[in-house]
Amino acid sequence: MKFRRSGRLVDMTHYLLHHPHALIPLTFFSERYESAKSSISEDLVIIKQTFEQQGIGTLITTPGAAGGVKFIPKVTRDEANGIIQRLCEKVSDPSRLLPGGYLYLTDLLGNPKMMNQIGRLFASVFANRTIDVVMTVATKGIPIAYAVASYLDVPFVIVRRDNKVTEGPMVSINYVSGSSKRIQTMTLAKRSLKEGSNVLIVDDFMKAGGTINGMISMLSEFGANVSGIGVLVESESVDERLVNEYISILKLSDMNEKERSIQVSKGNYFDFL
Amino acid sequence: MKFRRSGRLVDMTHYLLHHPHALIPLTFFSERYESAKSSISEDLVIIKQTFEQQGIGTLITTPGAAGGVKFIPKVTRDEANGIIQRLCEKVSDPSRLLPGGYLYLTDLLGNPKMMNQIGRLFASVFANRTIDVVMTVATKGIPIAYAVASYLDVPFVIVRRDNKVTEGPMVSINYVSGSSKRIQTMTLAKRSLKEGSNVLIVDDFMKAGGTINGMISMLSEFGANVSGIGVLVESESVDERLVNEYISILKLSDMNEKERSIQVSKGNYFDFL
Repeated sequence: MKFRRSGRLVDMTHYLLHHPHALIPLTFFSERYESAKSSISEDLVIIKQTFEQQGIGTLITTPGAAGGVKFIPKVTRDEANGIIQRLCEKVSDPSRLLPGGYLYLTDLLGNPKMMNQIGRLFASVFANRTIDVVMTVATKGIPIAYAVASYLDVPFVIVRRDNKVTEGPMVSINYVSGSSKRIQTMTLAKRSLKEGSNVLIVDDFMKAGGTINGMISMLSEFGANVSGIGVLVESESVDERLVNEYISILKLSDMNEKERSIQVSKGNYFDFL
Repeated sequence: MKFRRSGRLVDMTHYLLHHPHALIPLTFFSERYESAKSSISEDLVIIKQTFEQQGIGTLITTPGAAGGVKFIPKVTRDEANGIIQRLCEKVSDPSRLLPGGYLYLTDLLGNPKMMNQIGRLFASVFANRTIDVVMTVATKGIPIAYAVASYLDVPFVIVRRDNKVTEGPMVSINYVSGSSKRIQTMTLAKRSLKEGSNVLIVDDFMKAGGTINGMISMLSEFGANVSGIGVLVESESVDERLVNEYISILKLSDMNEKERSIQVSKGNYFDFL
């Protein structure tokens, strides 16, 4: 079907947004729109400019026969700052305090728009690492894993805390919950992760890091590698952190159930952006 | 910031795609781009044409002071047919057979691109119903709920099968699993659903419908209404279906563990599109 530039711009924008991190040959677009490659290249210049100016991300064009264009979702420092600032305010609401030093985050995790922003933040900061799969643990990490995976254009796998799972042969490991020091079990379907995969671990909340440590053990059981670790909220009030390098968006520095007070600040995100 | 038409088209396309089902006043765009409303209207005509032609969805423009433009994601019958056909082939792979009449779907549920397609299918068929929230049960329903909610621009809530949940006061109900006839429990955080909400229930797999029936009971406990029910796969081999009106994308009509055979066909989706 023949397209005019305006129609091409709309459709290409849609196509690129839905195929982040994928290399798309220019011939794909020139055939799709029955247009010369030179016109496609001009279109891409316009899209790239707009994406960069509006903080949507960038386009990377590689020349040559095996070349093409890749959309890399990115947030600007300013936008990240705004998103994280607004999150801080939302999460600082004392009505989020739950017994045991937990925070009620379910409403945020169930808000696709919010999750898309979190997904962009992580996809942006991890954009240059080699990531084949995103991993998380059920249940609350799932929306974050989905969002990040979607912006990185990779699949995600879900580690379960129960054994009542109908997914065929499973691998189970024991791990020690960092804060309660109890031995717990996590399982992952054997066929869900290939040996040698490069895996980004994400979760909603990290106290001592026992659960994330468990996921790291799980990866070594599968012969897979840790590409990075991202958490939405880290809790500062821990004696000993079990995990070394991680990126956090928010930091819970103090909460007092009795006084109904809660202190949330920016995590270490900007050290890595 | 002043924009030319080409830049506006790219940015508006991005903006509309990220705000489905939201009414956006034309003044929003004319201020954003420092452009006359008449130019914005012309842009929207181009976007609408391209969206419809490419099967992305449609734009609905309401005139007047309270008016604006709304992007409604839609699949065409043809595209839906193609998506469902490809899904049928994928799901018919006998290696997906699991003991107990279950299907291994985890790889599909962990594939954001696939889930986006499922999300669009459901958002399309449920587009005209009043939906405030999408609901599902942990764990495997979550990616579907996320995808649908994201295309409908509403939040989603996750019913849990365990009680070990740190989300504050919970509502628990008992329900009878349709196939195993066992009594089970599901819980939902009290603050996660408002009275009177209109709820779309989704899940990955439905046999007799016990779990979905449980969610319906949960909704009545919250004084909320069922707006619709959508399942990715329904299993035909049940004596008595506990749920009446639902929309299924695939139908598992026969599976034989001994012979490693499996028969998957289209669900009742097209009766509703």
